Parts: sequence; structure tokens; C-alpha cells
Amino acid sequence: MTDLFPLATDAVMSHALDRVLSTIDGGLDQSCRRLFDLLRIPSVSTDPAFDAECWRAAHWMVAELSDLGFAASVRPTTGKPMVVAHWPLAAATDRSGVLFYGHYDVQPPDPLELWETAPFEPWFRDAGDGRRQIVARGASDDKGQLMTFVEACRAWIAETGDLPVPVTILLEGEEETGSPSLAPFLDAHKDELTKSIALVCDTTMLAPGRPAITASLRGIWFEELTVTGPDRDLHSGLYGGPAHNPIRVLSRILAALHDDTGRIAIPHFYDGVASPGAGDETATGFDGAALLAGVGLSVPAGEAGFSIQDQLWTRPSCDVNGIWGGYTADGSKTVIPSQAHAKLSFRLVGGQDPAAISDRFRVFVQDRLPADCTVRFRPGGGGPGLTVDATNPAMVKARAALHDEFGCDAALIGAGFSIPIVTQFKHVFEMDSLLIGFALDDDCVHSPNEKYDLASFHRGTRSWARVLAALA
Amino acid sequence: MTDLFPLATDAVMSHALDRVLSTIDGGLDQSCRRLFDLLRIPSVSTDPAFDAECWRAAHWMVAELSDLGFAASVRPTTGKPMVVAHWPLAAATDRSGVLFYGHYDVQPPDPLELWETAPFEPWFRDAGDGRRQIVARGASDDKGQLMTFVEACRAWIAETGDLPVPVTILLEGEEETGSPSLAPFLDAHKDELTKSIALVCDTTMLAPGRPAITASLRGIWFEELTVTGPDRDLHSGLYGGPAHNPIRVLSRILAALHDDTGRIAIPHFYDGVASPGAGDETATGFDGAALLAGVGLSVPAGEAGFSIQDQLWTRPSCDVNGIWGGYTADGSKTVIPSQAHAKLSFRLVGGQDPAAISDRFRVFVQDRLPADCTVRFRPGGGGPGLTVDATNPAMVKARAALHDEFGCDAALIGAGFSIPIVTQFKHVFEMDSLLIGFALDDDCVHSPNEKYDLASFHRGTRSWARVLAALA
Repeated sequence: MTDLFPLATDAVMSHALDRVLSTIDGGLDQSCRRLFDLLRIPSVSTDPAFDAECWRAAHWMVAELSDLGFAASVRPTTGKPMVVAHWPLAAATDRSGVLFYGHYDVQPPDPLELWETAPFEPWFRDAGDGRRQIVARGASDDKGQLMTFVEACRAWIAETGDLPVPVTILLEGEEETGSPSLAPFLDAHKDELTKSIALVCDTTMLAPGRPAITASLRGIWFEELTVTGPDRDLHSGLYGGPAHNPIRVLSRILAALHDDTGRIAIPHFYDGVASPGAGDETATGFDGAALLAGVGLSVPAGEAGFSIQDQLWTRPSCDVNGIWGGYTADGSKTVIPSQAHAKLSFRLVGGQDPAAISDRFRVFVQDRLPADCTVRFRPGGGGPGLTVDATNPAMVKARAALHDEFGCDAALIGAGFSIPIVTQFKHVFEMDSLLIGFALDDDCVHSPNEKYDLASFHRGTRSWARVLAALA
Repeated sequence: MTDLFPLATDAVMSHALDRVLSTIDGGLDQSCRRLFDLLRIPSVSTDPAFDAECWRAAHWMVAELSDLGFAASVRPTTGKPMVVAHWPLAAATDRSGVLFYGHYDVQPPDPLELWETAPFEPWFRDAGDGRRQIVARGASDDKGQLMTFVEACRAWIAETGDLPVPVTILLEGEEETGSPSLAPFLDAHKDELTKSIALVCDTTMLAPGRPAITASLRGIWFEELTVTGPDRDLHSGLYGGPAHNPIRVLSRILAALHDDTGRIAIPHFYDGVASPGAGDETATGFDGAALLAGVGLSVPAGEAGFSIQDQLWTRPSCDVNGIWGGYTADGSKTVIPSQAHAKLSFRLVGGQDPAAISDRFRVFVQDRLPADCTVRFRPGGGGPGLTVDATNPAMVKARAALHDEFGCDAALIGAGFSIPIVTQFKHVFEMDSLLIGFALDDDCVHSPNEKYDLASFHRGTRSWARVLAALA
């Protein structure tokens, strides 16, 4: 079976694909039925009370994949189990295939009273604008998305008895809890899991009918600092004026991090940041103003001269995530505290080196410290940003496949956040990822009444069928 | 007895005073014995377990003052009782006399293990440099100090059968707990307690043998503000860059409060601040460098060009007493918080108007707020600074009396803190205060092994005998 296409021509493949797509179209009801079965399992990873349900979801996936002919197994970890499945078995030691990543765990459904129906009883909702939607916790994130890939495999196997490329599937059950078991698992199974490329289905389209590939992710670097002034808390009546107040010192340092144009003022901070690209929201359909309006804001706070899209996707940022010091309970206290604290994070892009950013940030702080004050840094952490080259052959093929399905170009979009597993694939496995997802911004991911458009599920499945063919 | 001095001449008064001073010298042992009796009462006001001891101290004072001939009584409040005593009884309705204020309550003695001996068993310690010291909780703050005045009255009454001026004594038992009952008590007994001047014995000398009168106190004004950016907490990956971070906004506002010379940058903030006075530490013996060194600092953080003494006594200041926002627990969280908060206080001097300062501060904040952000202020509170005119006749007479006792001028010093009762005397009773105390900086007030130099007690008593004569 593994040599189905030794002589495959484009024409043969094209013919096979047509049959596969027909199978997908004809089997949509049954595909939905299987997805509904998975959605009925409340595999909430954040609540220990649902531990058995997470195991049940893992076993459900293994049963499903085994039925298809995958060599699938549940792999225990110190947390929730992993699911690993190979097609064919030889894919376990063959690096030429693809690795698909998804997660079977879901967010808790709270607050329950805001759901129209029970969160683990999936149903079809008519959105009124012709869109039919699957409503349930996990419908989009990530059960619906991962099942698009599984159903595409099913159709290929049903029609041809094989898959166009060797496929390894890795599903975790801790994505919603920070993936504590993932890094050790990847380390221990590097040989088994390193493939030619990773396929990740946990991202969005631009809009219904407008596909996208996420081609860049910002990295992140965390810092925490404590500024100490006097060696004990002081009474502001006895010392106010001549005594250094570490909150004042810290405020001045934090205020100096950005100049008046919103640019980060740490020397050499922008080393490795590429010259501005297009940054054209009309090209991607990204609506930055709507994003801000959704949280009560209207004036972009990032670097002047850059679009909101660029401020999020292609430009680094710096945020204070927490600050504390002195008296914070009710009422007032005339204290000059000995210490003030802040937690910061930098979002990094392109070739910015986290270690260098950390060094430069610390020098920046030291340079602004009055002679009397000291600073202590906690060990930082994080990783660099990631960009998938648009000329990567797999990327070119996947975009062509998406174009065939949707009749328009797949936008290359960025994401302001990190997907740690993608960074690990790159830096530990030296494996690129294609981030292709069919979710929509209105899917209410992590919120009540989460949904996945039936069209997302259907065309997502068709898209993966095409991508698998294209990667052959 | 009240008309002992209708024809008193300076010579007569001088002769009487000589006898009074001799009586004080000859009765020092017995004066100490009485102070020791008071020190044995553990009248800790901060711990409800010692409530009965506070009542015992109040009754002890009333018994002592009644024995002398005062019309003395314990006055219940909703908290610890007040002690009010008049000499003669007519002083209750006569505004021409003086009001002496002190407090019979003490700080808790913890940590007990750091005391050389039991804190409520007073004893004489030889300091090794010729100084003999009374060691006990309250020896200095304020039992030793208030007893200097009571013993001075005792000597006058013993020698002459009368006091040079009508005297009302007010002792409270909540000074160490913020005096919650004091303001209502003063309001209710304004007619009984308003006199020509208040005498307050709760402050320090410059050094052994170097008397001082505290002639200025800084006022205080509290503000608390909350800056709101986005209408909910955001993920910094999804919004970092274009979304306003209220911690950044707050930091920039707090950083702008002082310019690079340490001057407060709020427009018109210094309205009402007198031109710099002497500010000469050599004149007062104040050792600013030692004050800072004692808390691990060396570089004054106040306005450039002003001595540490001036930064504390004659110049206003602004401190952030507390700041908080975002994630402050262990680890990191990629949050852009919706809100950030700070508590501030201003120390005020001279004619600075707290209400105007509050208005100007709020405008200063509003002016620095990005269009998208809002600020909410909590109602502020506090009061103005206070200065006793050095040409006030009572001040001039008291300084002359102290000069007679110590053979050197009493320094006019300032204090960076507020003494709320003195402000109330001024603004509610329109009554000036003379702050004359004999404590020393090394008295370990509020700390283990609190002490009062026997010389402080002895010469303090002699000083009050002289001041009473001078105010006649």
C-alpha cells in the first residue's frame, strides 16, 4: 500500500483527488456524526474532575485512527496522555512524511448559564445568514479542526487504500493547560516525530471562504525585576523627599522603555527586525480598527507609522504584565517601600535574539538606576519569533492546494502570539510548520456557545485532502 | 490661691522659680518613683487584651492629678478613655490658660526577646558615657515626657500652692492607634479645651543638652487613582503593541511627577511655598547624611539645591505609597491588564492648599492620558502643613526659658510628618501649639529597650517649670 503512487502522474493524482473530494462531499453527514461523538466527550484538561474524560477522548481517537488502519496508541505521560498514530507503520522511522499536530482537550465550558444549550451536546445552528454551525465546546478549538485532517485521511484511504504521503499524527491533551508534558515527550521521541514538515490546524481563516496560512509568529521573552531603594520600609513623613522611592525609580525606568512615538528605546532592540514589509491591511483583510474597537480602544498604541496589523504581526512589542509595590490594600499608608516589582514580556520578531534582548534590557535598567538603588532580575525565559519562508516548497504547494479549493489566494498572515510547539518543532527538530486552520474570528473559542461553521469543517476537510495530494 | 501673683513682679516670680527648681532637684528620686509606677502599667492600646490596663493608666493619672489638686476625671469615649484635668477648676471655662497634651498609651513591646529586661519593669541603666537612662516601654513615648510636665506642676504647687497660669491637661489613650476618638472628643469639648496655647511634649531635642522647639510640621494629602485602558484583560500575543497598557500609561504619569532635578512638575504645585530659608544643617545640628545612611542610602532624592534638612522640613514632597496592576503572583502571564492603580501622598508645607493641590494633580494626570484611557480618582484626604511663627510671644518666652535652663538657644526645627492633633488645634480651635520635647533620637521609641535619659526627665521637668513661669 505504501507504493500506491510510484508511477503517479499529475493526471493520476488529480483523478484520485477528484474521487476523494467526492467521497468527502458524500460522507459529510457521517463525518459530522463522528465529530459529534468526539464533542460529546467533556475532555476538559484544566479540571482534574475530568481526567477520565481526557483519557476517554484519547482512547476514542486511537480507536478511530486504528479503524482507519493507522498504527495508533495512547502514550501515557506524567499528565494527560498523548496520541501517536503512523500511516503506514514504517512512518515511525521514515522522516520523509508529514507530522500533523492537534489537541483533543478543551477549555472548561463556564459560565454554563451563558450557553444556549448544553456545551457537550453538539447541534446544528442556523446562523440566519445561510451559515450552518456546529455548536459545542471544542467544535472549533480543536476537535473540529483536527477532525478535518482525520476525515481527509479517511477519504483518501477509502478511495485509494493509502495516503499520498506517510503521515504521523500527534495529539496532545494538555494544550489548554500549558502543555507541561509536551517538551519532555518531544525530547524522548524526537526520532519518531521528526518529519519533513509539520501540519498544524489550530489557526484561523481571514473570513468565510478566504483561506489563510499563518506564516509568522512572534516570539516572547519574559523578565521580572525588583528595584530596592532604602533597606527597609520607611515612614514618608520622616523620609519623604530625600529618600529614594523604588516605585518612582521603577516608574521612570518603565516609562523610558517607549519613546513618544511608541518605539522601544532600548539600544539595539531592533537588531534583527526586518525592514517593514507590506503592512497593508487591505491585502490581508485584517481589520485592526475592529480588533481594537472590540476591547474599547480606538487609538493604536504601537509604533507610529505602522499599521495595526504590522504592530501585531511584524513589529516587536513590550508590555508590563504586572507591577506591585508598597501598600495596596484599602485606605492609605504613609510608606516609602523598600522594594518595587514588575513583570515584563517582549514579543519578538524576525531575527531578534532573546538572549541579546535580555542583556540589553538589563543594561538599560542598570543605566537608569540611581547610585543608591539596586535591581535584582529573575532568570528570564521564552523563545524567538518564527517565520515560515513563503518560498518554502511545501508552503508553495499548500497555497496552490488552498487556491484550488477556495478559488482565491490563501493570505499569508501573521500572529502576534507564540505557538510554543511550532517553535520547538523548528528549534529542536529543525522542522518547519505549515499553520493552516479553518476557524473564524467569531467562533467564540474559549467562550460560551463555541461553534465551527459547517463550511469550515467541510472545506477544511477538502483542503487537507488537496494539501496531502500536493505534498506527495 | 488663684490670685497668688496679682502683684507679682519679675523678682518675685524669679525667686519663686528658684525655689521650684530646687524642689525639682531635691525630689528627683521621688519623681522617678512615680514615673516608674506609671511605666509598670502595660497600657498597650493596640492590643484589646490590654484594654483594662489602659483604663488603669487613665485612673492612675486622674488619681495623681487629683492628689495635686487638679479637678481631674476619666472621660469615656467609644475607645480608650480621655483624662481631663483643670487647675484651678475655673480653668474649665477660662480660655486664658494653657492646654497640655500627652498620651498615656504605649506601643506593644514586641519582639520581647530583644529586650534586655522585662519591658514593664523600669530600671536605671548606666549607658557608660555618664548618661543614666530609664529603660521601659513608654519611658520616652510618652509617659516620661508627659510626666516632666506633671512633675513641674507638682513642684510649683508644692512651693507656691498654685500654678503660674491656669492649666488644663488632656491625655489620650489612643495615640498609638490613630486617635479614632480624638476628633469627636475635641468637637464635643471645644469650649472646655480651647486655651491661649497648647503645649505638646512628644518631640525631640537636637542632642543631649541641646533643646529644640518643633516649629513646623508638613501637612499631607492622599490621592488614589485607577487608570483603565482596554475594557477587559487582554492576551498580549493578540493585542501587544496596538493596545494601550494602563501600567505603561500610569508609569509615564508617575515618572512625569518629578523633573530631573527632583522638583515636582505639577503646574502651580509650589504656590504658597515660601522662598527657601536658611536650610543650614550646621545651625540646627540636624545630620541628614546620617539619617539616610541609617536606611542604606547616600544620595538625596529630593530637590537639587536643597539640603536634606530642607527636603524634609521646608520643602513639599510626593511619594507613591503603593502601586499594583496585572499579574503579580509567581511565574509569568501574558496579560495586558484592563486597569492599573496607585496610591500617592503629598507632604505639604507653608501655604500650600490641599484642595488646590488635589485639583492640579488631577488635571496633570488627565493631561497625560491617551485619548482611549480613562482615570478614576478616589476621594482624597488630609490637611495642610503648619508653621508656628517664631515671633509668637509664647514661642519667644518659651525659647527664653529653655535658654535659661540649657545655657544655649533652643533650635527651631521642623518635622517632615504631621501631628494631626496640632493641626486640629490650629484649624478647629484656632490655637497655636508649642512642641517642646526632651526625647532623643536614640530613645528607641517603638523599639525594644526604649529609654529616656534621666537628664531628659530632670531637665525636661525644670524646663516646664520655667516655661510655666515665662507664660505667666
